[in-house]
Amino acid sequence: MVAKAPAGQPFTLDLPPSGPATPLVTIQGVFAAADRLKGIVNTTPVMTSRTLDAQVGGAVFLKCENFQRIGAFKLRGAYNAMAQLTAAQRQAGVLTYSSGNHAQAVALSGKLLGIQTVVIMPNNAPPIKKQATEGYGAEVITYDPAQEDREALAERMLRERGMVLVPPFNHAGVIAGQGTAALELISSTGLLDVVLAPCGGGGLLSGTAVAAKGLLKHVRVIGVEPEGANNGTLAKKAGRIVKVEHPDTMADGLKPKAVGDLTLAHIVNVVDEMVTVSEEELRSTLEFLWNRMKLVVEPSGACALAAVFHGKVPVQGLRAGVILSGGNADIGAVADWFRAAKA
Amino acid sequence: MVAKAPAGQPFTLDLPPSGPATPLVTIQGVFAAADRLKGIVNTTPVMTSRTLDAQVGGAVFLKCENFQRIGAFKLRGAYNAMAQLTAAQRQAGVLTYSSGNHAQAVALSGKLLGIQTVVIMPNNAPPIKKQATEGYGAEVITYDPAQEDREALAERMLRERGMVLVPPFNHAGVIAGQGTAALELISSTGLLDVVLAPCGGGGLLSGTAVAAKGLLKHVRVIGVEPEGANNGTLAKKAGRIVKVEHPDTMADGLKPKAVGDLTLAHIVNVVDEMVTVSEEELRSTLEFLWNRMKLVVEPSGACALAAVFHGKVPVQGLRAGVILSGGNADIGAVADWFRAAKA
Repeated sequence: MVAKAPAGQPFTLDLPPSGPATPLVTIQGVFAAADRLKGIVNTTPVMTSRTLDAQVGGAVFLKCENFQRIGAFKLRGAYNAMAQLTAAQRQAGVLTYSSGNHAQAVALSGKLLGIQTVVIMPNNAPPIKKQATEGYGAEVITYDPAQEDREALAERMLRERGMVLVPPFNHAGVIAGQGTAALELISSTGLLDVVLAPCGGGGLLSGTAVAAKGLLKHVRVIGVEPEGANNGTLAKKAGRIVKVEHPDTMADGLKPKAVGDLTLAHIVNVVDEMVTVSEEELRSTLEFLWNRMKLVVEPSGACALAAVFHGKVPVQGLRAGVILSGGNADIGAVADWFRAAKA
Repeated sequence: MVAKAPAGQPFTLDLPPSGPATPLVTIQGVFAAADRLKGIVNTTPVMTSRTLDAQVGGAVFLKCENFQRIGAFKLRGAYNAMAQLTAAQRQAGVLTYSSGNHAQAVALSGKLLGIQTVVIMPNNAPPIKKQATEGYGAEVITYDPAQEDREALAERMLRERGMVLVPPFNHAGVIAGQGTAALELISSTGLLDVVLAPCGGGGLLSGTAVAAKGLLKHVRVIGVEPEGANNGTLAKKAGRIVKVEHPDTMADGLKPKAVGDLTLAHIVNVVDEMVTVSEEELRSTLEFLWNRMKLVVEPSGACALAAVFHGKVPVQGLRAGVILSGGNADIGAVADWFRAAKA
């Protein structure tokens, strides 16, 4: 399925373009997810800053998913997907592959729902990620990414153990769950002119778009990516999945190489626009969040705000909602990044 | 006024012990301050953590003054004091000495009230503090702490310019203003069994004690200090001002060498207990706040929580309010501190 292309060059997979045949997630799906998530996820605060508003000339509302359980929005999608499994599926258990926030989201959802979970992680993942995932009761299976293919490994386990796969983004239940963050945001702010979310594999962005467009008549939904991991921007333009073979950014949560067919359908049909930000724009936005707003946000989590903070998306006179997607930052690495910029 | 003692040894100043002659700040004073501060200060959020509550076996409510304007509670006291000046005093302007959060609090209050402000700072204060203070419109006068005495310098300026001194803690208007943080906290949480605040010069602790004792019939109020800057603990025990000549702690906001006569009176007569925490207890608590709760808090700001986090103040089965006093941390220095502990 993976086409050949020069290393580091984006290229297009030979998948059919998404069209009306792909059913989109609906606002009803997001409402149903919100019901399932009641008492499970934190209703995270929406924060504002006089300094930020003065700088951009608009009213910016930050949905602080860094304060979500497990430190990121991912619990919303994983739990919503897993809560809909049949008794037989729950009995069989859930499998996923992730070394990031989705791993912990699946593990905690499994703990809350009484479902056995297995997470496939590369053996070079930070030990702290493995420990955190195991801490929630998941079984972690590591593999050598140089020797083995994680999809093949996952397929073998699904076949052998009869487990259910809950992937990180290309899944209707996951997308609907992620949409509940924007639902909460808009419930708290009322009318918004524009809503921005970061885009990695496109799950959060797709859910955000469905929620915002379903609730508000006149709203623009914009996905934001780092320049070095712009697969979603390329996909939106091409109308098909485009793979970025070697994503290069500090925003490690936005490093999936390509969106999926389902998230592509949402990005093409529901999202209005994709924009990119440079690493320096990302860094200075993150520094503003840490230094001035006192919020520990991970680099991925600052991506959507960077587009507003640096005028890539002008918001003068507008009300803008921005999703800060998570806060699982390596504090030392972020501090070094800030320091290197000053040197 | 300063008695002679071996360097580094605490000693007692020959001031009269505080008694009924020193008028204490009242809950009415705190209510009046809250009225003056309406629309001026942020009503900061109160945050909780399942992990924290599970660890300590109680319900802990964190009053997040790191989200206050200027990044710390200090605006409350400075503005409340300055809003009560007469027209003639406003005309003359306000002077203070501080290289910390109080400097910015006086500067911003001056800007908001249209009062000229002058801040005396040591010439070795970080340039960023000077810039931030000047950014709010204050005149910053630096002096060489090896050559000059800041009190003498301040006295000369008060005499020459006829300005009004608004000191960082030993002032009834400042204490009443700082008490509004606890007032907001208790308004939001309802009944609390214990309330904890950090103690530097004792302004926040005094105001917190007046507010908590004024609102709640059965509440214990506890002041927390680093072991290396325990002048308030010594003062409470001795019933008089005790100076710690060389405070030694990462919590630079808690480095005043001694409480004042007015804060002493509150610590002796209103505060129930003083406890100390070690630097390692402070560090690990700060790391929990940054890493798990995603809150940028400065070392001083984590001091009160450290007493709860490490069982110095047991809260099993209790409802505990804790003031996180500020977030103006040097991110690189904090990251280095975390890293050094792991090495």
